[in-house]
Amino acid sequence: MSKLESVQKWTAEQGADFTYISNPKTIEYLTGFFSDPVERVLALVVFADQEPFMFAPALEVEVIKGTGFNHPVYGYLDHENPWQMIADQVKKRVANPRRVALDKSYLSVAREEALQTVMPAAQFDLDVTSFIDQLRLFKSADEIAKLDAAGREADFAFEQGFAAVKPGVTEMSIAAKLEYALKMRGVSNMSFDTLVQAGAHAANPHGDTSEIKVQNNQLVLFDLGTIHDGYISDASRTVAVGKPTDKELDIYNVCLEAQLKAMDAAKPGITAEELDAVARDVIEKAGYGKYFIHRLGHGMGMSEHEFPSIMEGNQMELQPGMCFSIEPGIYIPNVAGVRIEDCVHVTENGAEPFTHTSKELTYVDKD
Amino acid sequence: MSKLESVQKWTAEQGADFTYISNPKTIEYLTGFFSDPVERVLALVVFADQEPFMFAPALEVEVIKGTGFNHPVYGYLDHENPWQMIADQVKKRVANPRRVALDKSYLSVAREEALQTVMPAAQFDLDVTSFIDQLRLFKSADEIAKLDAAGREADFAFEQGFAAVKPGVTEMSIAAKLEYALKMRGVSNMSFDTLVQAGAHAANPHGDTSEIKVQNNQLVLFDLGTIHDGYISDASRTVAVGKPTDKELDIYNVCLEAQLKAMDAAKPGITAEELDAVARDVIEKAGYGKYFIHRLGHGMGMSEHEFPSIMEGNQMELQPGMCFSIEPGIYIPNVAGVRIEDCVHVTENGAEPFTHTSKELTYVDKD
Repeated sequence: MSKLESVQKWTAEQGADFTYISNPKTIEYLTGFFSDPVERVLALVVFADQEPFMFAPALEVEVIKGTGFNHPVYGYLDHENPWQMIADQVKKRVANPRRVALDKSYLSVAREEALQTVMPAAQFDLDVTSFIDQLRLFKSADEIAKLDAAGREADFAFEQGFAAVKPGVTEMSIAAKLEYALKMRGVSNMSFDTLVQAGAHAANPHGDTSEIKVQNNQLVLFDLGTIHDGYISDASRTVAVGKPTDKELDIYNVCLEAQLKAMDAAKPGITAEELDAVARDVIEKAGYGKYFIHRLGHGMGMSEHEFPSIMEGNQMELQPGMCFSIEPGIYIPNVAGVRIEDCVHVTENGAEPFTHTSKELTYVDKD
Repeated sequence: MSKLESVQKWTAEQGADFTYISNPKTIEYLTGFFSDPVERVLALVVFADQEPFMFAPALEVEVIKGTGFNHPVYGYLDHENPWQMIADQVKKRVANPRRVALDKSYLSVAREEALQTVMPAAQFDLDVTSFIDQLRLFKSADEIAKLDAAGREADFAFEQGFAAVKPGVTEMSIAAKLEYALKMRGVSNMSFDTLVQAGAHAANPHGDTSEIKVQNNQLVLFDLGTIHDGYISDASRTVAVGKPTDKELDIYNVCLEAQLKAMDAAKPGITAEELDAVARDVIEKAGYGKYFIHRLGHGMGMSEHEFPSIMEGNQMELQPGMCFSIEPGIYIPNVAGVRIEDCVHVTENGAEPFTHTSKELTYVDKD
């Protein structure tokens, strides 16, 4: 059964007339077509017992048809009312829609209200989000191959980035060089803004890549990822310029031990929160527990925000085909920040990383 | 009155206990702090008659305090329930919240339902979106200075991009070079994916920058923009490599005439739809009406999706301080695409562009 057919089956099982899907990533997952329509309307409408259709800005219609979506596609122009047009198409198929499923974790309240206005008798009490999340939770061999390819691009990016590190250059120039090298290879999109942070700046795990210059005897943190055929990579490495302090070496080694232990523990049967605890225990025992201020990892695939979330409170058992990051971090304000991250997929008896860049502390700028 | 105070005043006027704002761009507009929390929760809660607070992932709290937000900031960890924590803070200030305004054009249905669960007696019938849109519609001198600075960055990007065009190079390599040059100048973020499209590829106005190679005797379309201190630029130019055909020259000249006439007509008093018609008439009279398949322009400022929308059906009168794009385009499938775009701000008696790159057809690669 295709992914789209499984949504159709779910729609029927729920007793819904149709499911309205608006999340562009979900549409890509189900159809292969991706576009971010921003404030315009893009929707995939899946019926319980009829052919689905796509509704899109007029200028996307030909592109959608070209991607192999073999169902009707309707376009609208900017001055037209998309909601009325969607309702008209729906009513050609279901005269009186009563029960409708939405992707409630994406659709805005204003758009739900717009749909309600054109379909006043419909009840929007069903949410397809969990069903889609569940579908996306298990990656096929084909999806894992794409994630592997994205991981190799991230490894290449590290290689290029490490080569650009030396005292006196800005964080931004390092990011610029590695992204340039990727683009010249045809890797066009990063999965998120490349992070390069030097010294104490890395103690802010959600700070920006800045005009701060790398100095000698510092750690430099990289966090980066690419998009390969709709699937992402996401990895972090922390490298040394010159001679780091003993304190820096200590937090690096603790973070690495936490990461390696979690990599080793990741396999079918362990729960997400148990895996989080494996890494967290190492860091807590070393006295840095309060500096590890985020979960161990996040699910990933087409985006870096999928299930399973590897954190306290999540008792989901890991199973083959699940993909997520393992990324302990230690962030000591005004001192340094270290994060070491691989994304992995769970196999029958372990977990395989998508990235293979060495995790032994790399001393860049040796000359 | 600060922008935040005007939201507080609006909240009181509406009879709401508080306004819940979740759109990161709106939060940036009101507070100066920007972060995209992705699936995490970031909210600015503005009360009718009490001090506002911000609620954010724990790892953002110090950053927010550092940006000069002089009100309480509460953080949550990944395993905590943000909705209950928000409700607890609200109830310390308003024991029984009854009437609540939301930014309904951004907030997801699932999150509205989560808020409803923790505040079962509250009615979420008010939408602050239009009020914020109205605030954002008129740019201050300070905002226009930032938009001007972003425009100069776009001009620099064109200069770098044009220099990289020659037969045999890929669209992607041209985009890579101009973005690299920007980053080396410290311009870190594009406001959207840079578009470089050669020849017939440009006939798809929402296509991607690809591995297609520039050939001799073609038009090449650029659409790009940067972010300067939270404010964007967005501009398009189409240049010639070698000798374009008479047809290509004709569509270029028609598009340019449409763009210049609209630039000239943009001033206080004309409506958005009248301005759209000024450009559209030129293109229709030349016989290319059916190839101009989008509105003339979009409002812009902190994003490229603000008001006013310059399109048929929008009778809003232009007034000083409004900012938007003027971007006629002609897209002939399998032949060529031309788009010429400046963003402008309306002045007392006209409109001033933020970009100044020549619009006469530029012949790149002359040597």
